[in-house]
Amino acid sequence: MNFIPILDYASVLVFALSGALVASRQQLDLIGFAFIACLTAVGGGTIRDVLLNRDAVFWIEEPAYIVLAVTTSVVVFFTAHRLESRMKAIVWADAVALGVAVAAGSGVALKLGHSPIIIVLMGVATGSFGGLMRDVVCNEVPLILKQGELYASAAFAGSLVLVLGENLGLQPVYTYAACCVLTFTLRAGSI
Amino acid sequence: MNFIPILDYASVLVFALSGALVASRQQLDLIGFAFIACLTAVGGGTIRDVLLNRDAVFWIEEPAYIVLAVTTSVVVFFTAHRLESRMKAIVWADAVALGVAVAAGSGVALKLGHSPIIIVLMGVATGSFGGLMRDVVCNEVPLILKQGELYASAAFAGSLVLVLGENLGLQPVYTYAACCVLTFTLRAGSI
Amino acid sequence: MNFIPILDYASVLVFALSGALVASRQQLDLIGFAFIACLTAVGGGTIRDVLLNRDAVFWIEEPAYIVLAVTTSVVVFFTAHRLESRMKAIVWADAVALGVAVAAGSGVALKLGHSPIIIVLMGVATGSFGGLMRDVVCNEVPLILKQGELYASAAFAGSLVLVLGENLGLQPVYTYAACCVLTFTLRAGSI
Repeated sequence: MNFIPILDYASVLVFALSGALVASRQQLDLIGFAFIACLTAVGGGTIRDVLLNRDAVFWIEEPAYIVLAVTTSVVVFFTAHRLESRMKAIVWADAVALGVAVAAGSGVALKLGHSPIIIVLMGVATGSFGGLMRDVVCNEVPLILKQGELYASAAFAGSLVLVLGENLGLQPVYTYAACCVLTFTLRAGSI
Repeated sequence: MNFIPILDYASVLVFALSGALVASRQQLDLIGFAFIACLTAVGGGTIRDVLLNRDAVFWIEEPAYIVLAVTTSVVVFFTAHRLESRMKAIVWADAVALGVAVAAGSGVALKLGHSPIIIVLMGVATGSFGGLMRDVVCNEVPLILKQGELYASAAFAGSLVLVLGENLGLQPVYTYAACCVLTFTLRAGSI
Repeated sequence: MNFIPILDYASVLVFALSGALVASRQQLDLIGFAFIACLTAVGGGTIRDVLLNRDAVFWIEEPAYIVLAVTTSVVVFFTAHRLESRMKAIVWADAVALGVAVAAGSGVALKLGHSPIIIVLMGVATGSFGGLMRDVVCNEVPLILKQGELYASAAFAGSLVLVLGENLGLQPVYTYAACCVLTFTLRAGSI
C-alpha cells in the first residue's frame, strides 16, 4: 500500500489552514488567502520535486491538491473570526502537518532510491520550506529560525527514524507512523 | 501564428523597466540595476518553466531576453532622473506587463496540454513571481500582498478568460487579447 | 583535468563557514547552524543546476558536499566564540569563496556548451545566490545590494575573463585561475 499520497493530502490540508490563517492576520483579500495557502501547502513538496528532478511536480500531475488548498483557504476566509480564537488548536494542527509532511517527503526520496543523507534532507525540506516561503513572503521572521522552537530539529529526527526503520527492515506502516509521531511529539513539546 | 514569444518579449521589456526603477529607488550601482531588472523580467517565466519541467528555461534557450532586460536597465540607469518624475506612467506600464505576462504564462501551459487549473496557476505565477522576488530581495512589502491592489486577482481573472475562450473554441488572437485587456483593466482600475 | 569539483568543494567549505557565522549572530541552535550553512553553501550551485536542467543537482548526486557543509557548521557551532573575533578573516574567506564559486559556476555552463551570456550569468548566480538566500531567510539586507560592495560586479568581471580566456584558446588552468583571482581581488578591494 502506498501511504505517500495520503500523507501528501493530509499535509496540504493542514498547511493550507496555517497559510490561510497567516493571510488572515495580514488582512489579505480572498485571492491573497488562496495564494498564501497554496504557497504554504505545496511549497515544500514543490522544492522537493524540483530538487529530485521528478518528471512532474506532484500538484501539476494531480491538481486536486490545489483544489484542496484553495477550498481550505476559502473556508478559512469566511470563518476566520471563529478560527482565530482557536489559534492554539491551529499551532497544534501545524505540528501534525509537519509530522505528516516529513514522512511524505522522506518517503518520496526513499522510493526513488536516494542515499540516507538525501532522504533526511528531503524530509526536512518538504516539512519546512512551505512555511519558510510563507514567512519570507509575508515578511515575518521565519518560524524555523526562532529560538526554542524545535522545527527543523523535529523534522530531522523524524526523517532519521524513517531511514533507520527502513534499514532495519521494519514494516513501512510502522516506520512511517514512527516518523510522523516522533516529529509531531518533538515539535509539539516545544510549543 | 505563435503569440507567446511576442508576449514574452513585451513583458520582459516592461518588467525590466519596473525592476530597474526599484533599483533606482534603492540607489544601486549599474550591476545592481541589471541584476534586479533581470530578476523581475525573467523571474516569473523562470518559475513557470521550472515547475512545468520544460526542456530549457526560456531565456537560457534564447539569451536575447537577457540582452533586452540588461539593455533596458542600462537605459534606465542613465535616464532615471527623468523617468522617476514619470513614476505614474511606470505603474501603468507595469499593469500592461502584467496583462501580457499572464497571457504568455497561461499560453505556455495551454500548449503543453495542461488542465485548466494549472493553466490559470501558471498565468498567475508568470505574472506575479518576478515582481514578488524583486520585492522580497529588496526587502519591500510585496505589491501582491498590499490591500486594495488587484494584482493576483487581476491575473487570476485574465487567465480564467483565456481558458474559457479556448474551451469555447474562439480564435486564439481574440482569446489572448481578451486575457491581456481584462488583466490590464482590472489592475489599472485599482491603481 | 577537471577543476570544477575541486572548486565546488572549496566554495562549499568557505560558504558554509560564512553561513554558520551568520547563524551564530542570529543565535540559532545546532540544526539552525546546519540549515543556514547548507543553504549558503549549496544554494547558488543548486539554482545553477535547476536552471540548466542538469540531470541531477550536484549535491544530490554527491552528498559529500552536504557532509562537508554540515561538518563545517558543527565545528563553527562549538568554536564560534573564537571565530567571531576573527570576523575580518571570515569576510576575506568569503571573498575567496566568491572567486572560487564564480569559476565553478561558469565552468559548468561552459562544459554544457552554453552561450557566453549564459556562462557569465551562471557564474554570477552560483557566486551570489547562496549568500542572497542566506540574507533573505535571515531577514538581513542582502550583501549583494549594499552600496560600495563590489559583489555582483566582481562576479561579473570574473566570469567575463573566463569566457574571454576560453575564446582566446588559453589553457583552462590559467583561465580558471584568472577568473578566481580577478573576482577575489575586486571583491577584496571593496571590503
